[in-house]
Amino acid sequence: MSGTEIVTDAVVIGAGPCGLFAAFELGLLDIKCQFIDILDRPGGQCAELYPEKPIYDIPGFPVVTGQGLTDNLMQQIAPFQPEFHFSRMVNTLEKQADGTFRLTTDADETFIAKVVVIAAGGGSFQPKRPPVDNIEAYEGKSVFYSVRKMEDFRGQDVVIVGGGDSALDWTLNLQPIARSLTLVHRRNAFRAAPDSVNKMQKLVADGKISLQIGQIAGLEGEGGQLQRIHFSTDAGDVSLPATRLLPFFGLTMKLGPVADWGLELNDNLIVVDTEKFETSVPGIFAIGDINHYPGKLKLILSGFHEAALMAQAAKRIISPDEKIVFQYTTSSTKLQKKLGVA
Amino acid sequence: MSGTEIVTDAVVIGAGPCGLFAAFELGLLDIKCQFIDILDRPGGQCAELYPEKPIYDIPGFPVVTGQGLTDNLMQQIAPFQPEFHFSRMVNTLEKQADGTFRLTTDADETFIAKVVVIAAGGGSFQPKRPPVDNIEAYEGKSVFYSVRKMEDFRGQDVVIVGGGDSALDWTLNLQPIARSLTLVHRRNAFRAAPDSVNKMQKLVADGKISLQIGQIAGLEGEGGQLQRIHFSTDAGDVSLPATRLLPFFGLTMKLGPVADWGLELNDNLIVVDTEKFETSVPGIFAIGDINHYPGKLKLILSGFHEAALMAQAAKRIISPDEKIVFQYTTSSTKLQKKLGVA
Repeated sequence: MSGTEIVTDAVVIGAGPCGLFAAFELGLLDIKCQFIDILDRPGGQCAELYPEKPIYDIPGFPVVTGQGLTDNLMQQIAPFQPEFHFSRMVNTLEKQADGTFRLTTDADETFIAKVVVIAAGGGSFQPKRPPVDNIEAYEGKSVFYSVRKMEDFRGQDVVIVGGGDSALDWTLNLQPIARSLTLVHRRNAFRAAPDSVNKMQKLVADGKISLQIGQIAGLEGEGGQLQRIHFSTDAGDVSLPATRLLPFFGLTMKLGPVADWGLELNDNLIVVDTEKFETSVPGIFAIGDINHYPGKLKLILSGFHEAALMAQAAKRIISPDEKIVFQYTTSSTKLQKKLGVA
Repeated sequence: MSGTEIVTDAVVIGAGPCGLFAAFELGLLDIKCQFIDILDRPGGQCAELYPEKPIYDIPGFPVVTGQGLTDNLMQQIAPFQPEFHFSRMVNTLEKQADGTFRLTTDADETFIAKVVVIAAGGGSFQPKRPPVDNIEAYEGKSVFYSVRKMEDFRGQDVVIVGGGDSALDWTLNLQPIARSLTLVHRRNAFRAAPDSVNKMQKLVADGKISLQIGQIAGLEGEGGQLQRIHFSTDAGDVSLPATRLLPFFGLTMKLGPVADWGLELNDNLIVVDTEKFETSVPGIFAIGDINHYPGKLKLILSGFHEAALMAQAAKRIISPDEKIVFQYTTSSTKLQKKLGVA
């Protein structure tokens, strides 16, 4: 493993609203955060499942959208400059002999952290696999479910399958660097932002990309390297040369690797106390929808509270000798300086 | 006692942000609230101590004022039409043989409720008493620290002491109905809203009220009925006929009658569990700054969480036979109908 190693105070797994707010509470206590999220943007379920749907039960907001809340939280934590590592999954989490934690991701990174905050909501969003024989043999080599590095697509014959925002966004973003690009969707109607659909249609009209209405039927290639894709269409079967396939068939939620980290679970949820929201492993905390305790409600507002109490406990681990004086943002000039407002 | 009796599901003591949000969580579960607050408006400490001061740690608000947060919460709970009883203090709270609670206020009201939610923050805001001999003898008869019924001041010779918003607001409001009105302040500079100060000065210029710079020195009267007030001024001692005195010397916070209700306390805070935020008396809950449990932080955002969990427990008391299905505002048409948005 020759990947990147990042040493930090706190790793937060999951950049949904509770994870994001954790960076605020940790930041007030001078704790730096690194976020790791399987999605390609912040907001978690809020941004992924209902970005435009109104939420009515965030205190102080008679109504707010998932995207609006996410944007507000990103602005609120900006003074603390958290770092984000998107589109990767934490595979392993181990406590080391010196008490720190070692995490590895499926993007070949290692994180060393003093505390770990699991804010993973319902678990990992994982891409749905298209129902095509033998697709596993190509995954990670020529079939990808997200774009980690655009360079992997330069000069390639790219086929993108899907009709939502991910499919359309990547069609527009990869077209300039791909050798050829074909967008495949089962019908000539798209769930994506109208502006993206218009841009895509213009590229089709200009002959810069192809649009194929149909369904993926089979893959052809060797040693994990895709060479040709077969489709069934109303006009019969067709096939295309292709060296890269990006299927966007939506996401499904699974607990994922969290189940293997040796934490006490209750019905696929991580058991925590209500004083620190710490798991059965000291130094690993769990906040938001993924945790369990008596009375637990899966509400975003509860995750905010859990984040605040967790941060106090995390501070005592990270700075065991520091006397912690609890301060208010309304009255403390010291906190206001950290927020950049004093 | 010939006062009003109000029968309700839930009495919420304290209309600060946590109490207000409780009306939202209770409302989602079809529980009606009656608020009782010692202040004359909603918002609690937020609105009383720092209405214009920015708060930075309400999740989703990079910055919000105490008044702004209060206004938002009032809008958020409006669909549930909670009722507010301001400027009174709950004196007694007793559990009755049938399991309901009986509360009495210092405004001669009785409330009968199935559950009681104490959201009283630091306790009762109580008016500071001016340092004047024997003022206690007049209190409640001709000396008042708040205006409950304006009619009590009609046709009276009213003296208002103070330089803040309460003093100025009541000067402007009572002037039209008082026989005479004198505003007394120790210096010719006011902490009140500039617009109120301008209006007061116009009334002085028009000869409709008097402004006296000086300090209250003594009261004269009989059987609790004030007749004359003495002041010390730079020009020597002066006195005025007066039948009503309203001193606005600010507020001080005391735990107040809560201490006498037989609840388990810890250092003047009400001990609760973290599953229901219920006190040592089943059916009485405590949320926000007034409660205590391991890990407690006196944060508004924690009170919001406490309100949500309390509401579930309150529902089980109020509707013991109803199966409670936990629903989300984002997806439940039933909840959206209650909110008036579906």
